[in-house]
Amino acid sequence: WEILTVCGIEVLSRDYKFTNFAEALAFTNQVGDLAEAEGHHPEILTEWGKVTVRWYTRKIKGLHRNDLIMAAKTDALLS
Amino acid sequence: WEILTVCGIEVLSRDYKFTNFAEALAFTNQVGDLAEAEGHHPEILTEWGKVTVRWYTRKIKGLHRNDLIMAAKTDALLS
Repeated sequence: WEILTVCGIEVLSRDYKFTNFAEALAFTNQVGDLAEAEGHHPEILTEWGKVTVRWYTRKIKGLHRNDLIMAAKTDALLS
Repeated sequence: WEILTVCGIEVLSRDYKFTNFAEALAFTNQVGDLAEAEGHHPEILTEWGKVTVRWYTRKIKGLHRNDLIMAAKTDALLS
């Protein structure tokens, strides 16, 4: 995970690589299910062979401890 | 649809608004199914209540006639 500043807001961002589009979209859905279960929603960019997940907290326009937890839970989806 | 230049590449981009995350993710999957069926894959950014779809053609690093067709087919998913 890296911390990026996007439009003045700090976000936790990570790219995940896959071998095709279908696998990328399947992971997007896993992350979406996690987000719905936890009530906290990231930005998910789905491309051919790649998913970029960005966690941040709109309300505080930056990073909250919960974003770090969600990042770890996102990684755990693949383990 | 608007034409944006992203990192020097022209892309066709459109935002679609939804009332929650689940509806946004459902549309992402519809676009994904279309992409798989047509063998041409966009970038899809899924957020709470919003999906941004960007069509372009990597091989020519820009817009091909097919991207315009895919944009129209993307709109048709909601009609």
